[in-house]
Amino acid sequence: MNSTTPLAVGEHRHARFAEGLELDCGVTLAPVDVAYCTYGQLSERCDNAILLCHAFTGDQYVAEKHPLTGKPGWWERMVGPGKPIDTDRFFVICSNVLGGCMGSTGPRSVREDAQAHGQDPWGTDFPPITIRDMVRAQYKLVRSLGIDRLFAVVGGSMGGMQVLEWTVTYPHMMLAAMPIATAPFHSAQNIAFNEVGRQAIIADPDWHAGCYWREGVVPARGLAVARMMAHITYLSEEALTRKFGRRVRQGPAGAPRPEGPVSLFGDIFEVESYLRYQGSSFVRRFDANSYLSITRAMDWFDIAADHEGELTAAFAGTPVRFCVVSFSSDWLFPTSTSRALVRALNQAAANVSFVEIETDKGHDAFLLDEPDFDRTVRGFLCGVAEHAGLH
Amino acid sequence: MNSTTPLAVGEHRHARFAEGLELDCGVTLAPVDVAYCTYGQLSERCDNAILLCHAFTGDQYVAEKHPLTGKPGWWERMVGPGKPIDTDRFFVICSNVLGGCMGSTGPRSVREDAQAHGQDPWGTDFPPITIRDMVRAQYKLVRSLGIDRLFAVVGGSMGGMQVLEWTVTYPHMMLAAMPIATAPFHSAQNIAFNEVGRQAIIADPDWHAGCYWREGVVPARGLAVARMMAHITYLSEEALTRKFGRRVRQGPAGAPRPEGPVSLFGDIFEVESYLRYQGSSFVRRFDANSYLSITRAMDWFDIAADHEGELTAAFAGTPVRFCVVSFSSDWLFPTSTSRALVRALNQAAANVSFVEIETDKGHDAFLLDEPDFDRTVRGFLCGVAEHAGLH
Repeated sequence: MNSTTPLAVGEHRHARFAEGLELDCGVTLAPVDVAYCTYGQLSERCDNAILLCHAFTGDQYVAEKHPLTGKPGWWERMVGPGKPIDTDRFFVICSNVLGGCMGSTGPRSVREDAQAHGQDPWGTDFPPITIRDMVRAQYKLVRSLGIDRLFAVVGGSMGGMQVLEWTVTYPHMMLAAMPIATAPFHSAQNIAFNEVGRQAIIADPDWHAGCYWREGVVPARGLAVARMMAHITYLSEEALTRKFGRRVRQGPAGAPRPEGPVSLFGDIFEVESYLRYQGSSFVRRFDANSYLSITRAMDWFDIAADHEGELTAAFAGTPVRFCVVSFSSDWLFPTSTSRALVRALNQAAANVSFVEIETDKGHDAFLLDEPDFDRTVRGFLCGVAEHAGLH
Repeated sequence: MNSTTPLAVGEHRHARFAEGLELDCGVTLAPVDVAYCTYGQLSERCDNAILLCHAFTGDQYVAEKHPLTGKPGWWERMVGPGKPIDTDRFFVICSNVLGGCMGSTGPRSVREDAQAHGQDPWGTDFPPITIRDMVRAQYKLVRSLGIDRLFAVVGGSMGGMQVLEWTVTYPHMMLAAMPIATAPFHSAQNIAFNEVGRQAIIADPDWHAGCYWREGVVPARGLAVARMMAHITYLSEEALTRKFGRRVRQGPAGAPRPEGPVSLFGDIFEVESYLRYQGSSFVRRFDANSYLSITRAMDWFDIAADHEGELTAAFAGTPVRFCVVSFSSDWLFPTSTSRALVRALNQAAANVSFVEIETDKGHDAFLLDEPDFDRTVRGFLCGVAEHAGLH
């Protein structure tokens, strides 16, 4: 049973599932909360719902001002009336992932299990979660909204991992899938970058073995370093060169080594100040324990491994219509991996189209202004709607 | 004047230049020490000397057991009797870079200037240095050894930056130059990675504003994180996949989250344990302040900027014979940048050959077993020797 309140347009909701959720690790999280936002109206036939899966550090605030940062939603250019994901036509749902820190059950949630200590949050005791666990929580939400089948599941990066997990775990719960700038497994290089981020966090003096909340602090420096490094991987070398090149900016007064000329040490490169800003702004909205839990879930993601190492077997006989999208300058989730995914889907006789968007913006291109990408999203959704006779 | 002792084969030397060295920043370091190793014999005509320039975290121990790690020298496969850089024929010199921590003057050296405080090391007060400053120190050493002209200057990565700086600062002091896996400037992405490493170091609780030596500690965790991240950039995604893939290894007993199955949190990926080892072993041999000083020198390296933005002008009329080498899977110093360097050299009417080695080993390939690369080094040196009538 759940206590979801009736739907409205552009509202923030919070669903609590008292029966909880059994995780891949064997632990049952009960109760489990799923925080989400919706846009548009669910049709009477409940056949126009699109589930958006957000990326690693994203959240449910897709097309509205973010409550913490005050910035626009992460996909405002894509989601709204008349936009590629048209909320005049579709009912859009996006929920904060399990393990996140924007309202869904995660390390920052107060634990209510047998081992609960007063009002302590889970912290590092939060059970290990997987991408499949995240998808199971989304499934509960979708069912609780009275939806028997989603029109589509769409997401980029870690959101794309969730899309792929949906297609193998609930293939009959969806008409279409759009995995964007993603992969069916996390590569050794991706795992390596995640591990460096985790090590930066636990090296922070304010980490306190994960119980920083008890000390009233956050491991801000380590979390910022992790974010700075990750941010580099979201951009291409071309994008960094185009945006910053080797331009320098006046450094703060009283820069180190005063005997050095300003040109050497008073100034810093613009790319440095940009990264420092990215790091410092990130710590105000993200939880360090969520960072560890979610990166772990990404690292362990491997659809083939869950099907005797056979990616094709995972998709055998799938009824889902796929549109796989990659970006030419994305080196974190390169086109070559998307092509391998498409080959496996073809071998599984799946209905799949593949689009590589030419861009120099790197992995983050799916969040940026890419008209070809907008057309691809709009075109795929319209095509599926036509085929499904959606009015 | 200097106090260099007579030369011997495979000996470790230490030159002290009492008159010191004026740096680009305007500060004069006096005295300045240069620690170096030599291999082979200097010919009577002093015409067979090859200067090797080491990479960022390398040192002068090229072809012998490292005094701190006990590991083989960083280029033992390349330097020795009968090897591509044949010490039966050539006299090989390699010195620890200025700003380093293996005997040459650097942040860990005791300052002897007017502002000296007892026996304190320079620490963060060490003046900002440039790649050109490093080369000037090498020049002093070479001259002190009685060498009027080097047969060749050879180096990879940051060593290659020094090679290029040699060709523009002392073009008549050398016959040949071999810049390997390098670039005439540091890219925005390279600067970004260096900045993350610096931030990781200064975020360490044991950093103590750079005066960790006063506390008897080192910022080991931050330095390890910096090294882990940098190490990823030295390898290609293909190499990481080939070496580790997604293989896991048994984690330590008492792994976190005991309620989670071993497969989820007891184990760690092999690539994680590999990186952790790289990080922890690095801190035993490298100084954090040197890390900051040298990465800064790399970031500021830009040969064109020192010549009104014209790379071709920097090499105009150069008498040096160049052999530029890149590696196909090197994404830190990509082949595209080496090609641009070669174009500039051609426009400057320089004598230049260019070789791209096909390999999946990434940037570190110049340190690894690459027979084609060995043949390239041997072939180029033999060709120059023949042309120069070297016996």
